[in-house]
Amino acid sequence: MRTQVINDVETQRPTPPGNVRVAVAGASGFAGQELIRLLARHPSVTITMATGSQATSAPRRLTALSKIWDGTVVPLDATALDADAVFLALPEAASAELAPSLLAKGMRVIDLSGAFRLRDAAARTKWYPATSALPEGVAYGLTEFELDAIERARLVANPGCYPTASLLGLLPLQRAGLLQPETDVIIDAKSGLSGAGKAATERTHFSENHGSVAAYNAFGHRHTPEMEQALGRPVTFVPHLVPLDRGILSSMYARLVPGTSASAVAQAFERAYADAPFVRVTGETLPEIKHVAHTNFCDVGWKVDEGAGRVFVVSVIDNLVKGASGQAIQNFNVMYGFDQKAGLL
Amino acid sequence: MRTQVINDVETQRPTPPGNVRVAVAGASGFAGQELIRLLARHPSVTITMATGSQATSAPRRLTALSKIWDGTVVPLDATALDADAVFLALPEAASAELAPSLLAKGMRVIDLSGAFRLRDAAARTKWYPATSALPEGVAYGLTEFELDAIERARLVANPGCYPTASLLGLLPLQRAGLLQPETDVIIDAKSGLSGAGKAATERTHFSENHGSVAAYNAFGHRHTPEMEQALGRPVTFVPHLVPLDRGILSSMYARLVPGTSASAVAQAFERAYADAPFVRVTGETLPEIKHVAHTNFCDVGWKVDEGAGRVFVVSVIDNLVKGASGQAIQNFNVMYGFDQKAGLL
Amino acid sequence: MRTQVINDVETQRPTPPGNVRVAVAGASGFAGQELIRLLARHPSVTITMATGSQATSAPRRLTALSKIWDGTVVPLDATALDADAVFLALPEAASAELAPSLLAKGMRVIDLSGAFRLRDAAARTKWYPATSALPEGVAYGLTEFELDAIERARLVANPGCYPTASLLGLLPLQRAGLLQPETDVIIDAKSGLSGAGKAATERTHFSENHGSVAAYNAFGHRHTPEMEQALGRPVTFVPHLVPLDRGILSSMYARLVPGTSASAVAQAFERAYADAPFVRVTGETLPEIKHVAHTNFCDVGWKVDEGAGRVFVVSVIDNLVKGASGQAIQNFNVMYGFDQKAGLL
Amino acid sequence: MRTQVINDVETQRPTPPGNVRVAVAGASGFAGQELIRLLARHPSVTITMATGSQATSAPRRLTALSKIWDGTVVPLDATALDADAVFLALPEAASAELAPSLLAKGMRVIDLSGAFRLRDAAARTKWYPATSALPEGVAYGLTEFELDAIERARLVANPGCYPTASLLGLLPLQRAGLLQPETDVIIDAKSGLSGAGKAATERTHFSENHGSVAAYNAFGHRHTPEMEQALGRPVTFVPHLVPLDRGILSSMYARLVPGTSASAVAQAFERAYADAPFVRVTGETLPEIKHVAHTNFCDVGWKVDEGAGRVFVVSVIDNLVKGASGQAIQNFNVMYGFDQKAGLL
Repeated sequence: MRTQVINDVETQRPTPPGNVRVAVAGASGFAGQELIRLLARHPSVTITMATGSQATSAPRRLTALSKIWDGTVVPLDATALDADAVFLALPEAASAELAPSLLAKGMRVIDLSGAFRLRDAAARTKWYPATSALPEGVAYGLTEFELDAIERARLVANPGCYPTASLLGLLPLQRAGLLQPETDVIIDAKSGLSGAGKAATERTHFSENHGSVAAYNAFGHRHTPEMEQALGRPVTFVPHLVPLDRGILSSMYARLVPGTSASAVAQAFERAYADAPFVRVTGETLPEIKHVAHTNFCDVGWKVDEGAGRVFVVSVIDNLVKGASGQAIQNFNVMYGFDQKAGLL
Repeated sequence: MRTQVINDVETQRPTPPGNVRVAVAGASGFAGQELIRLLARHPSVTITMATGSQATSAPRRLTALSKIWDGTVVPLDATALDADAVFLALPEAASAELAPSLLAKGMRVIDLSGAFRLRDAAARTKWYPATSALPEGVAYGLTEFELDAIERARLVANPGCYPTASLLGLLPLQRAGLLQPETDVIIDAKSGLSGAGKAATERTHFSENHGSVAAYNAFGHRHTPEMEQALGRPVTFVPHLVPLDRGILSSMYARLVPGTSASAVAQAFERAYADAPFVRVTGETLPEIKHVAHTNFCDVGWKVDEGAGRVFVVSVIDNLVKGASGQAIQNFNVMYGFDQKAGLL
Repeated sequence: MRTQVINDVETQRPTPPGNVRVAVAGASGFAGQELIRLLARHPSVTITMATGSQATSAPRRLTALSKIWDGTVVPLDATALDADAVFLALPEAASAELAPSLLAKGMRVIDLSGAFRLRDAAARTKWYPATSALPEGVAYGLTEFELDAIERARLVANPGCYPTASLLGLLPLQRAGLLQPETDVIIDAKSGLSGAGKAATERTHFSENHGSVAAYNAFGHRHTPEMEQALGRPVTFVPHLVPLDRGILSSMYARLVPGTSASAVAQAFERAYADAPFVRVTGETLPEIKHVAHTNFCDVGWKVDEGAGRVFVVSVIDNLVKGASGQAIQNFNVMYGFDQKAGLL
Repeated sequence: MRTQVINDVETQRPTPPGNVRVAVAGASGFAGQELIRLLARHPSVTITMATGSQATSAPRRLTALSKIWDGTVVPLDATALDADAVFLALPEAASAELAPSLLAKGMRVIDLSGAFRLRDAAARTKWYPATSALPEGVAYGLTEFELDAIERARLVANPGCYPTASLLGLLPLQRAGLLQPETDVIIDAKSGLSGAGKAATERTHFSENHGSVAAYNAFGHRHTPEMEQALGRPVTFVPHLVPLDRGILSSMYARLVPGTSASAVAQAFERAYADAPFVRVTGETLPEIKHVAHTNFCDVGWKVDEGAGRVFVVSVIDNLVKGASGQAIQNFNVMYGFDQKAGLL
């Protein structure tokens, strides 16, 4: 797999230490708690600190993680963060502010926000205005396609949940040259409610979602430029909320180069993921969210209409694991030379 | 069916007019919107006004009711309420304050809050402190057991959702003298999230409830005294939230007078509801929420263990219909001499 | 609205009788029970008979409809059907066989299966091989666009659930000439499980669907030719199962004629449905299934990307009401000159 | 914790081997697949064979476990089972037949069915007639209360899912002598649909359960005698199905010995589980299914009404993990001297 370096810098890959000291900033949200849950059983990690998302966050225990991790989540204090690597599960403005100072202290950073995902300054200004510049040593953390860059990175910009699912479904075809040039792709994604975050709003009320489905942010979701950057073509993207908690199913509609056979499509997927421990290729048996919930897997299936020159791709992930915390740890493993699967099975 | 008058007064039952002018105060909540939905198709009703729950509520349209009722919900202004009858779907403190002034103007009131349900002053002070005194002409609106009182009432205190389900399951046995004296009953109720109200809180977040069940207010729910008042015996009551939107299933465990046969139990239920248009007796085929959702029905089934002298009763309702707005309209129909089913089928 | 007659014949529209005698064949399935539920309260209908879907179906009561309709569902016996109009909620092969004999006896037929929806003989042979020929007097029952044909029809082929939702979202643009010629449309639909029918299979098991989403029949669903027939252009259609019971949300992606403005799109929808009692136009507030569940409404919203020349349309229906039984009764009302809303509010 | 030996026998606890060779019979059901998922990552286990539940089961792959365990589930052939320990996730008649022959070959057996749970021959004949006699060396596998017996056992009868949740909620009070003698306890349990098994029936259809709750087997569930055996007092037990996939919440109502304080209750729970790695005591913060789904934890909380002498206990588990496969592995770990948590965190 080739690597797409965002902003390279001369770095040295650290020797795999027996035990890496990590901190988590933003440990009270959905993704942050999942990070703690996973890191607590990682064989080569010690959690040195977990903080809330603000300096004023009250200290709290994570009762759902009792007997898994019994530490206390403390207020966010950048100067007190003491770790080799820091996971940021913060709003992007907080990440944009905090990350450079951590890098300056020599820490490695895995950022789960969108602050450092876009290379184009104009796009970044539009969608993530708090990010003034990309630090040196940033890699885009779509693990399966960015291994080299992640190994050398000091800051990994963990992909968004929708881009993770969608790009893993489309990049094998894009890289194999099977998508018709100059055409757009249509991505109709379905996400569970944990993707809407932990804030209690009318949108996240149980009664608004039970027995219902809703499209939102049509043509206007900020994951669109992230996918266009990786694909190099226009993306028409509409996310939907479906009545479940964890999981994304991304349905993708694209045009193939004339004459592309179904077997060429299958080969492109099988080659792309032959060595990927967390991507499972299901072929014409289309994947379902159920099989990846609570795991770091991404399952990808597809159907080709040779006559019409169309391909339909489905990919599924758990948005809190492969779409956030799991992939963050997978990237951490790559950065430190651990087995990609460490702490994730 | 006998009638239990809360606070009698010499009243004259109104001659059924062709068209009753009604207002709804608190039309934006779950129960209020359901009231509007039902009243809009009632053959003998004109909705003259619908208000929010506060004087400062912004005017709004109920988009979910477009082409059913296209009026505007206006701010609450007690002096502007112009109607023959007013439905109050307000917090109980607001009902406690507003109802007397409406009665003083000669309007009839159906109150969906708990403000006027408890006859005992001490209990009322504890659970509904905003209610200083019961007005004259109050009836407890458990339609099937209070017909006479409701016909003569000027204010109907519509029962709580849990008491509606539970009392319809227990009163036939209580009235038939089949429940062992001096024993308590145990009521384990399961409610959908609409019962938790429209406010967006951590408790009503989709992700807190999907795939989960939670008991709450064990031994401390204010529907307990309401049920004890009607049953005349101690009630051990624990409600639970289950991951659905509309509906309550109440599971009731009671001791029978020694020697009570299963057929005596069946007869008690069948006699109690022979003429009730909205209670369906299902016998040993235990009822399920699904069959009553979006209806004004209460389904009641049971199982007798003759050897142990125990009866298990299950009743189900839609908490927003039979447990709130539907029963309110049923009571309105009784007050005005309409068919109980008017507007409800 | 213009009308697309499938197979015209000289018919006389019946004088609206006070009371039409109707029978339902296939009353035990999801759509059949919903038909009975709705017809039982229709002010101008008497249900003369309800049958199962086979001659060997055991007689049964519909306990969920107790106190709504207390009749017995009897085995299917074509010779015993005695009614002015017959609703067929049968597998399409049974409909294909039964309908001609009912028409021959002078009855009117509303068929909920796909047997008589396709005008093209080759397509019909492929997708509905049991239908040898279309009888005379067939209309395609998409009420809002086929009023004239339905008024004159002797047999109404009620549309499929997916075509109902999707065509109500696309036909206003198609008829107004706003869709780019020679392009296809992409329809990504999400349906609740009642759409998968009442048969207990691995596919309909609760545990297969809770917390999950699944695409199925990609490129191969037989509602595709039905939509292509109505739209006159290629349709790329993939349905998905989402974890809810009742409802469809159809997401549609189409290209506009260059220069089409957002206001031209809005006008097309508003004009198309100005007089439609059951279609609600929501504009850029995209509709959600919750607002139409248990109703005969179809809500339609959209978003235009003027720069890209793309339109995204969302429409929602209750698949058992507007997508089956409700629309069938709406068509029945049109055939008999009743108010379209009779029995449906 | 004390131990309740069902049928003792002189056994020697095996020296912890580096790697135990295990087989799973019945690997295609919900519990069997969960067993494979967990065992595949157990650090001291090699899966030597996984079989279906019948000799005629077709060989199949477990696609949901791809890249976790890529073996093939083969037809059940008792003579071919080659392992140190065998997990039986079979219908109880199959377990009753198969287990003795495996024991005779010197294998250890963990049986997930009810075949060997009841000590009383008459009860066993009534509820599990296929089990003619208990083999020697049987322990009842409620890990937290049967450690000694499990260490010495050759066959562990893994508890039922409802008894696991309920007994972990009641035994601390029973063992501490806090429950009023001669009284029964009432257990109202709520289970997700995976507890109803993998067979596709009307009962397990998605549409029967979404938005619904249903009581079943009132007074007649065979987990009742299992709980009465462990508690030594009558149990009134009614299970309910709630619309979720995995998890049980058990609500228990019991009478306390007069004068029992809330703190005495709290102490009983805290002492019972001080050393239990998988039971979390939550006190008056009542536990919810969400926090234990996909884990081997049992969370227990309670509320005491000192005046009434009543206690309400809530316990929650994941029925497929702590209620089946997880507890089976926990028992396996105890039998072989591994850390209880091996393979379970």
